[in-house]
Amino acid sequence: MQNFNYSIPTKIYFGKGQIRNLAEIAKLGRNVLMVYGGGSIKQNGVYDKASAVLQENGIQFFELSGVDPNPRIETVALGAKICKERNIDVVLAIGGGSTIDCAKIIAAAARYEGDPWDLVLDGAKIKEALPVVAVLTLAATGSEMDGFAVISDMAKNDKLDTASELIKPAFSILDPKFTYSVSRKQTAAGTADIMSHVFEVYFTREKDAFLQARLCEAVLKTCIKYGPVALEEPENYEARANLMWASSLAINGLLTYGAEVAWSVHPMEHELSAFYDITHGDGLAILTPAWMEYVLSDETVGKFAEFGINIWGIDPEEGSWPIAKRAIRNTREFFTRMGLPQTLGEVGIGEENLKKMADKLDGKLTETYIPLTGEDVLEIFKNAL
Amino acid sequence: MQNFNYSIPTKIYFGKGQIRNLAEIAKLGRNVLMVYGGGSIKQNGVYDKASAVLQENGIQFFELSGVDPNPRIETVALGAKICKERNIDVVLAIGGGSTIDCAKIIAAAARYEGDPWDLVLDGAKIKEALPVVAVLTLAATGSEMDGFAVISDMAKNDKLDTASELIKPAFSILDPKFTYSVSRKQTAAGTADIMSHVFEVYFTREKDAFLQARLCEAVLKTCIKYGPVALEEPENYEARANLMWASSLAINGLLTYGAEVAWSVHPMEHELSAFYDITHGDGLAILTPAWMEYVLSDETVGKFAEFGINIWGIDPEEGSWPIAKRAIRNTREFFTRMGLPQTLGEVGIGEENLKKMADKLDGKLTETYIPLTGEDVLEIFKNAL
Repeated sequence: MQNFNYSIPTKIYFGKGQIRNLAEIAKLGRNVLMVYGGGSIKQNGVYDKASAVLQENGIQFFELSGVDPNPRIETVALGAKICKERNIDVVLAIGGGSTIDCAKIIAAAARYEGDPWDLVLDGAKIKEALPVVAVLTLAATGSEMDGFAVISDMAKNDKLDTASELIKPAFSILDPKFTYSVSRKQTAAGTADIMSHVFEVYFTREKDAFLQARLCEAVLKTCIKYGPVALEEPENYEARANLMWASSLAINGLLTYGAEVAWSVHPMEHELSAFYDITHGDGLAILTPAWMEYVLSDETVGKFAEFGINIWGIDPEEGSWPIAKRAIRNTREFFTRMGLPQTLGEVGIGEENLKKMADKLDGKLTETYIPLTGEDVLEIFKNAL
Repeated sequence: MQNFNYSIPTKIYFGKGQIRNLAEIAKLGRNVLMVYGGGSIKQNGVYDKASAVLQENGIQFFELSGVDPNPRIETVALGAKICKERNIDVVLAIGGGSTIDCAKIIAAAARYEGDPWDLVLDGAKIKEALPVVAVLTLAATGSEMDGFAVISDMAKNDKLDTASELIKPAFSILDPKFTYSVSRKQTAAGTADIMSHVFEVYFTREKDAFLQARLCEAVLKTCIKYGPVALEEPENYEARANLMWASSLAINGLLTYGAEVAWSVHPMEHELSAFYDITHGDGLAILTPAWMEYVLSDETVGKFAEFGINIWGIDPEEGSWPIAKRAIRNTREFFTRMGLPQTLGEVGIGEENLKKMADKLDGKLTETYIPLTGEDVLEIFKNAL
């Protein structure tokens, strides 16, 4: 097991009616910038509930709406400008991962004099940030409990992730009912995102992290059990609650500490969405099985067999190679059953930019589970066409 | 899934050489009370390493040694007196759960004007506490990452647990190598303690907490895999590391949030050690299978069968009752294989005080997985003779 420094300071208020704890913002400040997306929170009542708690507690708030699904640096810059002009104390994100990611970098840029893009290029430049609070409305990215943010500059076809301890939310409110109105498509994509976060660390070079591997399996089993339930019964509390908590635990550090490895599939997917603005979870669902097939080898077959036995319940007697192949096939079939795309063609991506996207990753995936060159990435992309 | 408020603020420095991070104490204060037990930390070099880091960083420390395995209220009172007289800023525990528990209540009593026993009777009376830092030398109680403490008043045969957010350690240092010198007996008892913490929440009334149940199984599998390895190879880093991290995750709240239920076996064991001063883990190893057998019924058989299938790998085809019974038998056999006692007679406990101990719990176990009266407890004790 690797050495690690564990720090998960974000408090979570989880469950029905926990929105009342938004009153805790008053301990952080009384001047809030509320950041949200396309207005779905106005349709499903979350905006009204949150506003009511803020008003009842004498907390003043300004609004920045219209955050895009792959949040843009322009929105970050605008938010930071408002924070500076209005002396904002706290940035409150209401939404899914995109909104929370955007709020995090707004909070950091509000305390930074240079170009906000600097903070995306290098998280170490974040030396200070306003406190961030999140009200989650989509189980997917885990941004509600981690120190990551992904921001895009579409003009440059850049979608980059940055990280800092200082942008971990002070607290987040997770009410599973707030995800009842999430569409089938987004529910499926969110589940794929959670699973991908687990895969990125489950397939680690670290062999001694037994406990972490079993924790990974706990989260994967939860997604496999409840993803389909949430699709069929969007108001099934048990399913929404398990998926929501899984989204946070998948990426808050718990699974990674002691087993850390550089990620493989997320960087590849980021190229897809930077060029084509596709749904992140769709891209992950396409690339994950393609990546698994590509890295399956004598070296990795044991780990994939473990995955097949522990997650898909395949009989150990079948032998490593057949189990490993069946495990990957099951993963692909699961995504298909969830209505997720399995080829790039399905999301409108052809051969035209594959090489350009792959080249951008050349030399950047050397510390992953299995190191990948630009050529490897291109092969994986092609296999996924 | 139940509502919950998640808060696990303790930072963990995990791994080889992490003792150097004791320097972080300087951020909390420069006047430290170092609390430890019977001197094993002087034999295994941990005392020297910790002292060196403190000295190099200009941190002054006073010492309180001789904390008993079931820490006494008299030691707490003495520690609190030193804190007040010496203007102590930080209480540093070096040891296992007993030492850390003792340090926690010293830290609270140092900021309390009344009788320290008040704080044991009622954790809500803890309104303030000095920061606590722990260097762990035994994987067992999980005190290094939680807000609990168990303190005894042997004169009254009272062993009680108390809890407060304010006594959660600021940070803890977990170097698995510091547990290399732990005896076979203590390694086994520690493993039983970790497993019991998991059982106390795995057997919950909450049926929808699927993710939590799978996380519980991750920790149980870790104990079952590595407990025997650590007995045979005390310097096996992988085994010591997995057990050490399991000890923290078993009780820091992760498994409980969303699935909370009052504990059954710990309160019964506390009566045993309050009357007989036996090793806590020994008492748990004796009572756990006896409790399982006693509460097995048509109502609970499904859960015990799940336990048998997921933990002991029993074929689901065998049917619930046979699986459940075999799971309990396997648990007992595992403890036996670990060299743990399985009867009260083995630890010198006869019939003489059973009724008195059971009566003390009458009316106190009404919110447990299966509610238990004083008579039920007496039956379980008798079955364990």
